[in-house]
Amino acid sequence: MLGVALLGLGRIGKIHLPNVLGNSRLELLYIVEENVNGVNEELAALGRAGKVAVVKSAELDRVLGDARITAVVICTPTDTHANLSIRSMEAGKHVLCEKPLAEGRDAVSRCYDVAEKRGLILMAAFNRRFDPSYRSLYTKVRAGEVGDIQFIRTTFRDTPLWLGAETFSQTFLSHDIDIVCWFAGGLPESVVCVGACHNSEVKENGDVDSCVVTMKFPGEIIGVIDFARYCSYGYDIRLEVFGTKGMLKMEPCLQTTVHEYSNAGKRDPPFAVSFPDRFKDAYLLELDHFIDAVEGKNKCEVTRFTSTAISTVIDAIRKSFHTQTIVKLSSA
Amino acid sequence: MLGVALLGLGRIGKIHLPNVLGNSRLELLYIVEENVNGVNEELAALGRAGKVAVVKSAELDRVLGDARITAVVICTPTDTHANLSIRSMEAGKHVLCEKPLAEGRDAVSRCYDVAEKRGLILMAAFNRRFDPSYRSLYTKVRAGEVGDIQFIRTTFRDTPLWLGAETFSQTFLSHDIDIVCWFAGGLPESVVCVGACHNSEVKENGDVDSCVVTMKFPGEIIGVIDFARYCSYGYDIRLEVFGTKGMLKMEPCLQTTVHEYSNAGKRDPPFAVSFPDRFKDAYLLELDHFIDAVEGKNKCEVTRFTSTAISTVIDAIRKSFHTQTIVKLSSA
Amino acid sequence: MLGVALLGLGRIGKIHLPNVLGNSRLELLYIVEENVNGVNEELAALGRAGKVAVVKSAELDRVLGDARITAVVICTPTDTHANLSIRSMEAGKHVLCEKPLAEGRDAVSRCYDVAEKRGLILMAAFNRRFDPSYRSLYTKVRAGEVGDIQFIRTTFRDTPLWLGAETFSQTFLSHDIDIVCWFAGGLPESVVCVGACHNSEVKENGDVDSCVVTMKFPGEIIGVIDFARYCSYGYDIRLEVFGTKGMLKMEPCLQTTVHEYSNAGKRDPPFAVSFPDRFKDAYLLELDHFIDAVEGKNKCEVTRFTSTAISTVIDAIRKSFHTQTIVKLSSA
Amino acid sequence: MLGVALLGLGRIGKIHLPNVLGNSRLELLYIVEENVNGVNEELAALGRAGKVAVVKSAELDRVLGDARITAVVICTPTDTHANLSIRSMEAGKHVLCEKPLAEGRDAVSRCYDVAEKRGLILMAAFNRRFDPSYRSLYTKVRAGEVGDIQFIRTTFRDTPLWLGAETFSQTFLSHDIDIVCWFAGGLPESVVCVGACHNSEVKENGDVDSCVVTMKFPGEIIGVIDFARYCSYGYDIRLEVFGTKGMLKMEPCLQTTVHEYSNAGKRDPPFAVSFPDRFKDAYLLELDHFIDAVEGKNKCEVTRFTSTAISTVIDAIRKSFHTQTIVKLSSA
Repeated sequence: MLGVALLGLGRIGKIHLPNVLGNSRLELLYIVEENVNGVNEELAALGRAGKVAVVKSAELDRVLGDARITAVVICTPTDTHANLSIRSMEAGKHVLCEKPLAEGRDAVSRCYDVAEKRGLILMAAFNRRFDPSYRSLYTKVRAGEVGDIQFIRTTFRDTPLWLGAETFSQTFLSHDIDIVCWFAGGLPESVVCVGACHNSEVKENGDVDSCVVTMKFPGEIIGVIDFARYCSYGYDIRLEVFGTKGMLKMEPCLQTTVHEYSNAGKRDPPFAVSFPDRFKDAYLLELDHFIDAVEGKNKCEVTRFTSTAISTVIDAIRKSFHTQTIVKLSSA
Repeated sequence: MLGVALLGLGRIGKIHLPNVLGNSRLELLYIVEENVNGVNEELAALGRAGKVAVVKSAELDRVLGDARITAVVICTPTDTHANLSIRSMEAGKHVLCEKPLAEGRDAVSRCYDVAEKRGLILMAAFNRRFDPSYRSLYTKVRAGEVGDIQFIRTTFRDTPLWLGAETFSQTFLSHDIDIVCWFAGGLPESVVCVGACHNSEVKENGDVDSCVVTMKFPGEIIGVIDFARYCSYGYDIRLEVFGTKGMLKMEPCLQTTVHEYSNAGKRDPPFAVSFPDRFKDAYLLELDHFIDAVEGKNKCEVTRFTSTAISTVIDAIRKSFHTQTIVKLSSA
Repeated sequence: MLGVALLGLGRIGKIHLPNVLGNSRLELLYIVEENVNGVNEELAALGRAGKVAVVKSAELDRVLGDARITAVVICTPTDTHANLSIRSMEAGKHVLCEKPLAEGRDAVSRCYDVAEKRGLILMAAFNRRFDPSYRSLYTKVRAGEVGDIQFIRTTFRDTPLWLGAETFSQTFLSHDIDIVCWFAGGLPESVVCVGACHNSEVKENGDVDSCVVTMKFPGEIIGVIDFARYCSYGYDIRLEVFGTKGMLKMEPCLQTTVHEYSNAGKRDPPFAVSFPDRFKDAYLLELDHFIDAVEGKNKCEVTRFTSTAISTVIDAIRKSFHTQTIVKLSSA
Repeated sequence: MLGVALLGLGRIGKIHLPNVLGNSRLELLYIVEENVNGVNEELAALGRAGKVAVVKSAELDRVLGDARITAVVICTPTDTHANLSIRSMEAGKHVLCEKPLAEGRDAVSRCYDVAEKRGLILMAAFNRRFDPSYRSLYTKVRAGEVGDIQFIRTTFRDTPLWLGAETFSQTFLSHDIDIVCWFAGGLPESVVCVGACHNSEVKENGDVDSCVVTMKFPGEIIGVIDFARYCSYGYDIRLEVFGTKGMLKMEPCLQTTVHEYSNAGKRDPPFAVSFPDRFKDAYLLELDHFIDAVEGKNKCEVTRFTSTAISTVIDAIRKSFHTQTIVKLSSA
């Protein structure tokens, strides 16, 4: 079993905690978090009270100095990711870090420079790639089921409404950019973004709450992301890949398989509530992928390219929106 | 019963012929077509051999001079539409003309100038608006079901492959532009088009075979059309309208309701083959709408604005594609 | 064109009338109906006022004596079917008669004795067989898609509630019996029926409002009909055929392809309202099948066996319900 | 944490093992199984090698004498269930036992007599009741969504083909009987079964491979089970409840949400492979329900009535099939 420390037990940390505890290849030795009471309550609720050392961030050096620790899972606030990743890797630990690893291409690159120099796994948590539906669709596309790809579309309509980040940020757009580039097989040649705003609070912040991003890729592939910050009917994420021989389409996940028929018509089961239930399996499989990479059983799929590509595209989206132009990317 | 003449019995004329013959409010008196034998075969197949006068276009003046004729249905080649419409209206006849009425805003306007001066109905055949599914979706949107519209998307993937027109023409894009503008309630403020090409024959002609058009409308509405000239799995046309309170989605029509389950999985019924079966009911209802307008029972929904707006947007699409810019439309 | 007389213009006659008028191979010469004013209004609504002779039943002999009449379409009340069919055939006319042709095996047989002696087509109007979905499913089954048939199920939940017939009658059960026997390829060996009642008015009449009929056929095929006289959510008719290699399932028809998404979830388009819209195409295709048979272009699929088999099975259902036993059918 | 012993590590035991290990309220202290090597391999694969005592059944008394053990999970062969349950309860342990608890009403009753005398939880593993889809459907029915229940139908088409039990046994029919009686709220008044056989190996054993069971319940409810031992297209289990105000329908679970479109049409995602993946969540939730009952947090839903009712109905099904009659049940 690999010794692990979990840094940060906020919204995302609480998703990873039971997965780390329940994974038979991992032994969770430390949780590093200022809110010690909160951690103890969470551990008690999971039946593990007193079984994991809970320390504050001031003691991080001691944790990273513990030879039993092989890997670190970072779930702290976004602006600490790069620094904590580098400190962990310099202590010789492999890192699974919540995305984004860092804001901007250069910051991402500095992290990967350390990983490569030290020969460590550094994996940003792009969980969607490990979701069985995305994975199945990817495998079919690579097997040639749709022929040459002509068109890739992702729809992402989020819920609940969260006002803690701007629209043109990694928080909202990075997963969709990652998926489109993953399927297209590289970076786009050009990017154009059209935005709009309906929510008054978002508008006051000078931001938009929805946008359509169109990307042209080598190989005559067009990618489109349509995004909305709030969706009234549930967590609506979809993917469609159209090619010369067919189409593959991923529909939203439903909570059950129960359909209701009444004089108001037929009603389908509700959508997944939000990302934690939609991506429950993906979080588990992502963790297994990381452990496999640490154990040398596979190559880590989430690479330096993944994180830098997203930064590059987000910069282009922002520029396109603000200058109202189609932005060309120099070959990256 | 209204006396009617049908001009042109090609691919589209053959769709209208049984509808005109079967409509109890119409009496088809003439078919004007050079290929007289072809017309006679068609009439025989419909059990109406010898019951309609078949004349060549040289005799059109005689037909238009027949006082029993109230309306003319024009299904001739596109480049004759404007001229034949004007001739018919100058002879005092109402006109249902296959789209496009004319290429270019000005040519469209000249036709409507005549119609208005003469007080006649001039209706371009935008049949999709009369399709029960589009109509139902429109009614629900106008009733406020989705709240404020944020996003309108049409998908149009054509089949069979037809090489007789360029991508940025009324032939391919006008229905989708019409639908998006109809729902958005006016003309877009800006248009941007990204195109791509996979078909080698189309590429040799300097054309593309697929494109994504993004339009920004007043009221913070974004409209997107994705278009492909060829679809391997059937006639795929879809519409999605997303708003602050919900979404409405029109799925493709299927030929039956029979689903197959085997060791290869579950297979749904096939899509409609192409537009004649997909829009069978729409063609009938379009004709009824025209007759109602002629009889004064309703206002004709397809107006001067409809046809000029499409011309305006197609010009902007073409310009955006060729200049690789976002094209702003002055308020039209 | 074949000269035709239509007998009876009630609920069903009004479905057939526009189909007969619109069929280019038929010329409707007479409508025989006591309510002459009603017929004239109906003809006016269809734009055919004054174009068809309207006569009362007292003049039927004159109609049947008109040499221009080749076929008769019978839509009068059920208890007149057998007599009118025989009178029409004795006058040398082919007959398309609404089902049931007659109540009871013997009465059905007497009608077919006349048809065979005279060499005329006598077709009971089992329209479901001509519906594109039923037909497609039948063709696939006969092509071996499901392997050996193990199980055939029809669901029939009617709407609106109609109290004018008893549950174990041809009115409600004949179509489903016909479909099951058609697929199974003959008569069942045994029949068992379990009934139940929720509607108080039906209960007062000593009748039930729902039942499950299970039939065992040669070849180890089990057929099940589940029936309810009233369905709150629309006209719910379904068919499922399960075999050693797969399953085919016919789902209910929906009115549009528009799906609604709101905070109440996803709602599918409404079901067909009732049989006239669900079987609109089937009525047209049934008429074509009859004309083809009259013209010698095909063999009429609806035969003496069809109508006698249904009578035999209905008798067995009634007996099973009243005696609470499994009823064996002697080989018929 | 509750100390637990797991008896038996065959096909079903291997499903329960990771669930017991991963449940934070349980501590697995013993696995009782003859095949010690097999158990050790399984534990190693789960990362728990050497963390659970593995003993043979000869040492069962020692295990049951361990005061740290609160509950026993029984996954041994069916014919040992009753005896092991009684031994465990006589040692003061709560029991979760794979179904069937025992064959026959009397044997079931003897087990519950012990449970009641000792004040212990005895729960037969009717996992379907804890599946989120079944549970959601049940909650909606009890909330009155369908009005008065008229009709309950379960479909169960098993895969892979398993020849180790007869059709009219608890192995195949007990879950469906349980579901129908659970929804109907009691025992049926009458039962009739029609069986058929297509598989030659099953036929040679004098058994059938498919059947339709129809049950009439108090309150004019009709229940129907259709069962087939082998399904070529996946694990097909469905439930439909129809009432005076609507219908609820549970469709089969699909492995992903990815749909394929090609010139062969649209293909839906594959069905669940078999019961272990279809009921993955149900097994977890069933275990939680048992722990809650042991801890006094809820009443155990699976009762003496559950198990005796199933035995009663299976006896009636067998009798109906062999005597070809409708079997009446005296009020039980």
